[in-house]
Amino acid sequence: MIGADRISANLTLHTDKYQINMMYAHWLHGTMNQQAVFELSFRKLPFGNGYAVVAGLERVVQFIKQLRFTEEEIAYLREQEENYDEAFLSELESLRFTGDIDAMPEGTLAFPNEPLLRVRARIAEAQLVETAILNFINFQTLIATKAARVKQAAPNDVLMEFGTRRAQEGDAAIWGARAAYVAGFDATSNMRAGMLFGIPTKGTHAHSWVQSHSTELEAFERYAEALPDQVTLLVDTYDTLRSGVPNAIKVGLSLAAKGKRMSAIRLDSGDLAYLSKQARVMLDEAGLTDVKIVASNDLDENLIFNLKAQGAKIDSWGVGTKLITAADQPALGGVYKLVAIERDQRMEPVIKISSNPEKVSTPGVKDVYRLVNLASGKAEADYLAFEDEENVRAGAELELFDPAHPYLNKRISDYEAIPLLVPIFQGGECVYELPTLQAIRSHHTRQLELFWPEYLRKLNPEGYPVDLSPAVWEKKMDLIKRYKDKR
Amino acid sequence: MIGADRISANLTLHTDKYQINMMYAHWLHGTMNQQAVFELSFRKLPFGNGYAVVAGLERVVQFIKQLRFTEEEIAYLREQEENYDEAFLSELESLRFTGDIDAMPEGTLAFPNEPLLRVRARIAEAQLVETAILNFINFQTLIATKAARVKQAAPNDVLMEFGTRRAQEGDAAIWGARAAYVAGFDATSNMRAGMLFGIPTKGTHAHSWVQSHSTELEAFERYAEALPDQVTLLVDTYDTLRSGVPNAIKVGLSLAAKGKRMSAIRLDSGDLAYLSKQARVMLDEAGLTDVKIVASNDLDENLIFNLKAQGAKIDSWGVGTKLITAADQPALGGVYKLVAIERDQRMEPVIKISSNPEKVSTPGVKDVYRLVNLASGKAEADYLAFEDEENVRAGAELELFDPAHPYLNKRISDYEAIPLLVPIFQGGECVYELPTLQAIRSHHTRQLELFWPEYLRKLNPEGYPVDLSPAVWEKKMDLIKRYKDKR
Repeated sequence: MIGADRISANLTLHTDKYQINMMYAHWLHGTMNQQAVFELSFRKLPFGNGYAVVAGLERVVQFIKQLRFTEEEIAYLREQEENYDEAFLSELESLRFTGDIDAMPEGTLAFPNEPLLRVRARIAEAQLVETAILNFINFQTLIATKAARVKQAAPNDVLMEFGTRRAQEGDAAIWGARAAYVAGFDATSNMRAGMLFGIPTKGTHAHSWVQSHSTELEAFERYAEALPDQVTLLVDTYDTLRSGVPNAIKVGLSLAAKGKRMSAIRLDSGDLAYLSKQARVMLDEAGLTDVKIVASNDLDENLIFNLKAQGAKIDSWGVGTKLITAADQPALGGVYKLVAIERDQRMEPVIKISSNPEKVSTPGVKDVYRLVNLASGKAEADYLAFEDEENVRAGAELELFDPAHPYLNKRISDYEAIPLLVPIFQGGECVYELPTLQAIRSHHTRQLELFWPEYLRKLNPEGYPVDLSPAVWEKKMDLIKRYKDKR
Repeated sequence: MIGADRISANLTLHTDKYQINMMYAHWLHGTMNQQAVFELSFRKLPFGNGYAVVAGLERVVQFIKQLRFTEEEIAYLREQEENYDEAFLSELESLRFTGDIDAMPEGTLAFPNEPLLRVRARIAEAQLVETAILNFINFQTLIATKAARVKQAAPNDVLMEFGTRRAQEGDAAIWGARAAYVAGFDATSNMRAGMLFGIPTKGTHAHSWVQSHSTELEAFERYAEALPDQVTLLVDTYDTLRSGVPNAIKVGLSLAAKGKRMSAIRLDSGDLAYLSKQARVMLDEAGLTDVKIVASNDLDENLIFNLKAQGAKIDSWGVGTKLITAADQPALGGVYKLVAIERDQRMEPVIKISSNPEKVSTPGVKDVYRLVNLASGKAEADYLAFEDEENVRAGAELELFDPAHPYLNKRISDYEAIPLLVPIFQGGECVYELPTLQAIRSHHTRQLELFWPEYLRKLNPEGYPVDLSPAVWEKKMDLIKRYKDKR
């Protein structure tokens, strides 16, 4: 949390123009103060994974806290759009976020079609913040989820985030490093991320270090002199097995003679399975059995899984491009949908219809519960119910059914219903104490323990059920029917 | 350029830990002031495109200008790494960039294996800035290149960047919007990008606007009242052809009766080919022939190309996720390689060998020239030569040959050699006046005119030659041989 609020200047206009246009139209028609509830959810899991790892909430909290139109933003709006009335602009000057936000804490496992975050506010405010909230949650959740897959492929190895140079600009590098750490990575190479968030940093040396010396051996020796406690030598500048590893061994032995230990060698190109096995033999034969092998070079969870299956002797993985960009699916399609609007002093559920059935929204202000079977200690399903439904909170027997295929159903009674959305802002005040990164990592680990491994596996996981209460289901069917009848 | 320097706090530690480790090792061995030259290039074009569009230089300039370790960074380094000597840390306090940077201006077309940017500085400085420079140039060049492909699919339509909510965090959204504008987009939806960079902004309304009203017609009417000069109505909230378009037509006719014009309708789901043709017929039959049709929904250059081939009646395209994340290849693999180092008071070319032939670097400090045939006015090849080679600058006859297949060769004499790298920093001073975005866009357009269409086409473009001078080629072969002999 150290100073992360200093990262960005005013982000109030980090929004789409249509949000401001809609605010203006609401203002003009006197509906700007109408209460509205929006829910953020995604429809499809990325990477074929069985779950997503929520991240981005800390950034959202900072964004909401700093929300205000300064003179600069107002002047820009005035110049941009002559339609905007001066009285509207002057109302923006005093605009602050005054609503409620409830959200899943970072590190929580989340599933399709359930709210990760809910905003209840004047419609003008709730619209304004949509774009930035989606931007932050979509990206950070995506990267945390990708990192969780990498972690699963190498649960006991050291995992390092090395992607800054290939990240999609500056913010992605640091917030992506943080998201990877949330999901179990051990370190990042990005020093600013280290400074801002307290993530451990790691680094070796580049090819240029070797190139800038007359010989590779001289380069290695000099590096070891400078940083004797963390000597990791990059061995592939000229020829890994004929030059790099033998030179590293010389340095390793000379450190050993002084009672020091060379930490590792690093492989960054070539056939990592073959090279790591050869290098391991060479290191062991020289007596350097405690020198580790680090690998990098366009790694992802699938390559790591395959390298391990081939018996590669790699202890530590530097994962760059494919993690920090989520290369196989670089966007989480999170959406932010209006689920209820104030009409005649009460909140009325609303729906969005679509010719794509999966795009039909689920109306009404909903809470989401994780139903944990008290006998097994494992999560059985997530359950969406209206705020005022007492059943689930009271632990009453519930009938669970698949919203897409209602004949798939079962009854559950011996459960604990854990509410997943926790209060973040209430009446514009932040009521949530941001947890430390360590606490978020622990929460994430405990979340994983709640699930049967079949839901968590990397390939073809079993789909975890997200069910609707009968009341939510009926309201949705009712509104669909109402709109079909209207036509 | 307005205030873009206010976007970020200190970015000096936006670097990999190994850069600082190497700086420290150089400091310890007294080699920190050694002059070094690094070149930034990429090895492979993204998206199967025939060229890349350079972007990111403005961000690099701002980064270099703000480079300094403040107390906060120093304190963090001290706490992080007990190996770092206090005298080293105190030397960092006064560190500024004192070297030279030459680079291709934004909007320039670039090709594999040629320097887009060159840094000549004390090795400590040149290392420190590597990570951030790669981060900025890699991302922005990637997005500008993706945008150029979209522009090619719809050269005469209005193109809008709509990706913020799916962008990889905050910086990607705004710098990506700027990169898209460089390559010919007309507008962005991101208001902050509009404010910071002066990019035109556009926006309509969201589904929530419709949902928040009792009827779709009421929603449309109210929106039109508020912003009568830019009425674009989103017609797919409930049912595009049975409800959305008919309601939009009512509003369009009512505006027309008042002498106003509805700008457009927007389609955001469903079969865009079918719906746009049907909607066009409905609008035309109502006499609203001048109302445009805007489309959005996971568009990219291939979908746009196919929609146009199907005769879709779409005038304007909102392109989001797939542009702002460069979804089909979300990273440009730009690298930053040491090409020369000071030894015994002179610059000595250095090489990096690899078992992957395409990863072998090209040694020596090189300039890059675009050879334009004076008869045709078209570019024939790019040509890399050492700084001190006079031939090409003097316009002497050159023999061009393919570095990978030297039997492919030709002679050229009637040419103009345009140097592509221009001075940006000299002795630490910025000597480059950042062009306006309009000037960058014009430069990009002129660049495109320099090339035969065969190099520019979207699918299977002809490979544009990037050739080495005989001297560069011989130096490369010489160094490869030297390292092979050493083993």
